[in-house]
Amino acid sequence: MSTTLPTPTTPALASTPVIAPVVPPQSRLRPLGLDEVRITGGFWGDRQRVNAAHTLGHVLGRLESEGWLPNFDLAAEGALPTGRRGREFADSEIYKYLEAVAWEIGRSDDSELEATFRSVVARVAAAQEPDGYLNTEFGRPGQGARWSDLEWGHELYCLGHLFQAAVARERTRPGADDGLLAVARRAADLVCDVFGPCGIPAFCGHPEIETAMAELGRVTGDARYREQAELFVARRGHETLRDIEWGRTYFQDDVPVRDAEALSGHAVRANYLAAGAVDVAVDSGDDELLSSLRHQWARTRGRRTYITGGQGSHHQDEAFGDDFELPPDRAYSETCAGIASIMFSWRLLLADGDAAYADLIERTLYNVVATSPAADGRSFFYANTLHQRVPGISADPEGTSPRASSSLRAPWFEVSCCPPNVARTLASLDAYVATADADGIQIHQYAPAEVNTTLDDGRSIALKIDTSYPSSGEIRVTVLGDATAEWTLSMRVPEWARGASARVISSDGATEVPAPSGEVVRIRRTFAAGDVVELALPMEPRIVTPDSRIDAIRGCVAIERGPEVFAVESVDLPHNASVNDIVVTRDTPRDVDGRVWVQMGVRRPVDDNWPYTKAGQREPLEGSVFVPLVRYHDWGNRGPATMRVWIPTT
Amino acid sequence: MSTTLPTPTTPALASTPVIAPVVPPQSRLRPLGLDEVRITGGFWGDRQRVNAAHTLGHVLGRLESEGWLPNFDLAAEGALPTGRRGREFADSEIYKYLEAVAWEIGRSDDSELEATFRSVVARVAAAQEPDGYLNTEFGRPGQGARWSDLEWGHELYCLGHLFQAAVARERTRPGADDGLLAVARRAADLVCDVFGPCGIPAFCGHPEIETAMAELGRVTGDARYREQAELFVARRGHETLRDIEWGRTYFQDDVPVRDAEALSGHAVRANYLAAGAVDVAVDSGDDELLSSLRHQWARTRGRRTYITGGQGSHHQDEAFGDDFELPPDRAYSETCAGIASIMFSWRLLLADGDAAYADLIERTLYNVVATSPAADGRSFFYANTLHQRVPGISADPEGTSPRASSSLRAPWFEVSCCPPNVARTLASLDAYVATADADGIQIHQYAPAEVNTTLDDGRSIALKIDTSYPSSGEIRVTVLGDATAEWTLSMRVPEWARGASARVISSDGATEVPAPSGEVVRIRRTFAAGDVVELALPMEPRIVTPDSRIDAIRGCVAIERGPEVFAVESVDLPHNASVNDIVVTRDTPRDVDGRVWVQMGVRRPVDDNWPYTKAGQREPLEGSVFVPLVRYHDWGNRGPATMRVWIPTT
Repeated sequence: MSTTLPTPTTPALASTPVIAPVVPPQSRLRPLGLDEVRITGGFWGDRQRVNAAHTLGHVLGRLESEGWLPNFDLAAEGALPTGRRGREFADSEIYKYLEAVAWEIGRSDDSELEATFRSVVARVAAAQEPDGYLNTEFGRPGQGARWSDLEWGHELYCLGHLFQAAVARERTRPGADDGLLAVARRAADLVCDVFGPCGIPAFCGHPEIETAMAELGRVTGDARYREQAELFVARRGHETLRDIEWGRTYFQDDVPVRDAEALSGHAVRANYLAAGAVDVAVDSGDDELLSSLRHQWARTRGRRTYITGGQGSHHQDEAFGDDFELPPDRAYSETCAGIASIMFSWRLLLADGDAAYADLIERTLYNVVATSPAADGRSFFYANTLHQRVPGISADPEGTSPRASSSLRAPWFEVSCCPPNVARTLASLDAYVATADADGIQIHQYAPAEVNTTLDDGRSIALKIDTSYPSSGEIRVTVLGDATAEWTLSMRVPEWARGASARVISSDGATEVPAPSGEVVRIRRTFAAGDVVELALPMEPRIVTPDSRIDAIRGCVAIERGPEVFAVESVDLPHNASVNDIVVTRDTPRDVDGRVWVQMGVRRPVDDNWPYTKAGQREPLEGSVFVPLVRYHDWGNRGPATMRVWIPTT
Repeated sequence: MSTTLPTPTTPALASTPVIAPVVPPQSRLRPLGLDEVRITGGFWGDRQRVNAAHTLGHVLGRLESEGWLPNFDLAAEGALPTGRRGREFADSEIYKYLEAVAWEIGRSDDSELEATFRSVVARVAAAQEPDGYLNTEFGRPGQGARWSDLEWGHELYCLGHLFQAAVARERTRPGADDGLLAVARRAADLVCDVFGPCGIPAFCGHPEIETAMAELGRVTGDARYREQAELFVARRGHETLRDIEWGRTYFQDDVPVRDAEALSGHAVRANYLAAGAVDVAVDSGDDELLSSLRHQWARTRGRRTYITGGQGSHHQDEAFGDDFELPPDRAYSETCAGIASIMFSWRLLLADGDAAYADLIERTLYNVVATSPAADGRSFFYANTLHQRVPGISADPEGTSPRASSSLRAPWFEVSCCPPNVARTLASLDAYVATADADGIQIHQYAPAEVNTTLDDGRSIALKIDTSYPSSGEIRVTVLGDATAEWTLSMRVPEWARGASARVISSDGATEVPAPSGEVVRIRRTFAAGDVVELALPMEPRIVTPDSRIDAIRGCVAIERGPEVFAVESVDLPHNASVNDIVVTRDTPRDVDGRVWVQMGVRRPVDDNWPYTKAGQREPLEGSVFVPLVRYHDWGNRGPATMRVWIPTT
């Protein structure tokens, strides 16, 4: 965290509602909503298009055919528990789908989608109990009692996703008459009654409601929701939940949030909780908590994060490992953990303004979020391994994968949290591109986009961003209107971007501006319409080596280019070689014809001798050749293959 | 597998019953029973003494207090299922305990133990149903139906352990009137009726009954049992069992045994099955199956085995990983998998005579079996990690550990297969020391011992083995009686023992004999009483490096001395250094005052920067010092600590 933006002199809260997932009442940076930033194409625009055109329909189809949405109909008919299908947290996938659709309607104003949205909301609303309770797995004769299994029941977790859907809807269609916000508020009021200061002194085994409740408080102005989120965060870490096989670390009930040194336990749970804790710290002015979370973020990034931004080293409990326990071949790196990590980083970015948060968001977006869905948006990685030792088995396009292995993308999972989570992230991605403060605009992520917003003093600012990033490193920002006074355009220079350059082109000519990597280029001037700021990020392929403390990848290198991590996939190797047998022989990758090539040799296994001897490695190295790499997010698209990100060196 | 013994010209089966766990009707080597080989002290004698004096009583106490043995009383009273305690496989622990006690009675003829044995057998027998069925978890109103959950029910698995106990009893006390053999036979007859050629065409999700049924056939002469074992092995691998989250590989139902390339799936299951498959192959003369198992053994040893001999790389499913997937920090290396691996290796050793099998047995005995129990025999490692990154938490001496983590030894586990498995192994260990063939005696494991046996032609042979191995490498075998003709004394020279020497000392003087490592020294002569054969194994500490294909320990070395693997434990490091921060700076270990010392430096973590950069490792190396190592099997005995076997080099 080398650089922070200047402390704003006034709260950055805009007077008009912001159409974004996270809108703190005060923060160093003010988020810009979907009406203020629009991604117009490029890498992410393509993915948003596929998300809208294919993924949303695919998800809805599965929610219907798996019976998870029909569970609500059964609930409304009083027919449950007979016929209920899916796991105990299946309700949440409907809510994540609704959130995704709400954002998508906010972006595209699609009337067919609007009708679908209302129809699903109606089915959800019909299942709500008179007192506000809403869950298809608990509370009826023949089911577990309400709140009887806080460790595993996921009731509050599901409601958290409901609240986030309602927030998305209220922000994109304020006062809409579909009733979703009212459903959410009735449920939230019940939660406050049941779990309030005088209620059940506990919380959900799967955090999520904390950040959702905080945001529901922000959108409704109801202080009770904020206070409930605060209570949930404060109660955690005192061994309230029952112990389980993997210990209470699994659901972050071992150490109070403010006393933790790093994220630990289940990686999705840990990041959702941390995101909610930032919300609580910001809303309540708890600087001690915020400072602890900053430290946890840095420690987690430095010691418990894969090069892809992925988090979670254990398959067994989907959890963080110890510091520097980052095996590539057993990387779990769940797609949802990447999304949750972005949620945590984004909240700290708004609070602190430090570009390092945006750096990690970028890395995670390109190498986890973009990796999960196939090009057609209809199959997904659940886990994101960094080393596939044996070719996977193709998933049945009509089937449901029981396993979270990373061998190939699958259309659906028994635990299918990732597909709708990807969908809601892509549908709201515009809101993560740029922010404002009293003095100007900060661009955090680079995509072709349009920005139209108003500073606190009422000055309008309009920008057009042109780039084919990350294919190229050229980013060109054109100012579309004259300014009456100075303001500052800030652009992040990623930490990897050594040798970046920037210049301002105006009617006066071009002026070079320093662009040190890991910092922020700030251009402060009275911009005129047609002024251009150009940032050139170096896009040569880079060889990187791991910190010596990461045991599992000692003696290996990885190749990056821009924000993208690369991998070698067996389909690109000569003579049926396996990625398990290759060695980098020259550490100067080449960028030819849009692909990155690295010179490698092959060691063929020769025997099954005892593998621990004085001799060490015994196989001769076969002559080396240049091998084309694949962008990590593109791997697995050409059928079963072996793959590795970290490649041994000679 | 560089060396095999000469093919015997006649079957090696002795005419008198052999008091040993595995007695094939014909084999290259004939096992020697507890009445023929006696370990008289030393490393293993100490452990056998602790096993008899403490472990057996500790196990029985827990079987009572946990309710697992009282389950049988409830069954006899018709009170089940109410009050049943323990997991579905809890019955098996009573049987393993009985097997251990049977062997111990065979060794020590302890009358108190005999009374205990009979009392436990009586409680087991009382729970048997009239038709022979015996299981406390299934078959009663309110329980699952018999054989209704072959995937997870463990009914046949439990019976397998019952049969092994009955075999141990019948071999040590033939015709005893305790009734255990009759109980076992009634159950075995029921199994043959239910699962025979015209019965349920399936098998148990947890192999074990295969090897047990084969041995029951051998001890009773009942061909039906042998045929049933053959059926169970042949049925496997055709996707008969239901699919599960981890796939049918977990219980070896993905590929027929004879078509497998290596052991895979759950490591205990895989080894028990392989052991049973060797029995079936030997009993039925199925050379194709035996040949496949030999290949699987070699592939598994060369690609899926830890330096300790431990097997199993995944915590999630307690399973083998892919080839060369051997992470030290996530090594599962379950104690029971080590024991099961010894069972597999021993059966191949008897069948083939190849010293490589005895090499792996030795490695696994010293570094897995000896590692599990604490010095007092009252707490155990379930998993045996090779790298403990954070100090563990002391187990409650009165408690039951829910987890199989390796942080510290625990007195008991919810799944407590390992303690009684260690007990039965130690109680029968004498039977793994030496074998005979038509031409003489083969010594496979070195311990102070006495050997008294009779060759096929009726010649008696008596030997005394003196050694303090593995403290020293000197093994001295004294022939106690004159021979009337030539016979051959064979002694294994472990693969690691480069520079070993041997000599024969007789009244004629001393004669040097070549002793190449990885081979067998064979002394063929007409021995006279008082003749001595001395084998001197080199016991300097050795640095070993891993095969280059094992990614997780690239750039590291391990230190061995004799058959023992060493580790560095944080309690021996200066200034509160962690094992995570050390580097070997000179690869010449020293052996001083009975300890092995290695020169190491420390890299102190300096920051939480992004860990993947061009720079790579950034911390300076602090001045290096000599650090004493700990024998791996002794680690964790001085309180919570970090530990590692594989240490990075500069």
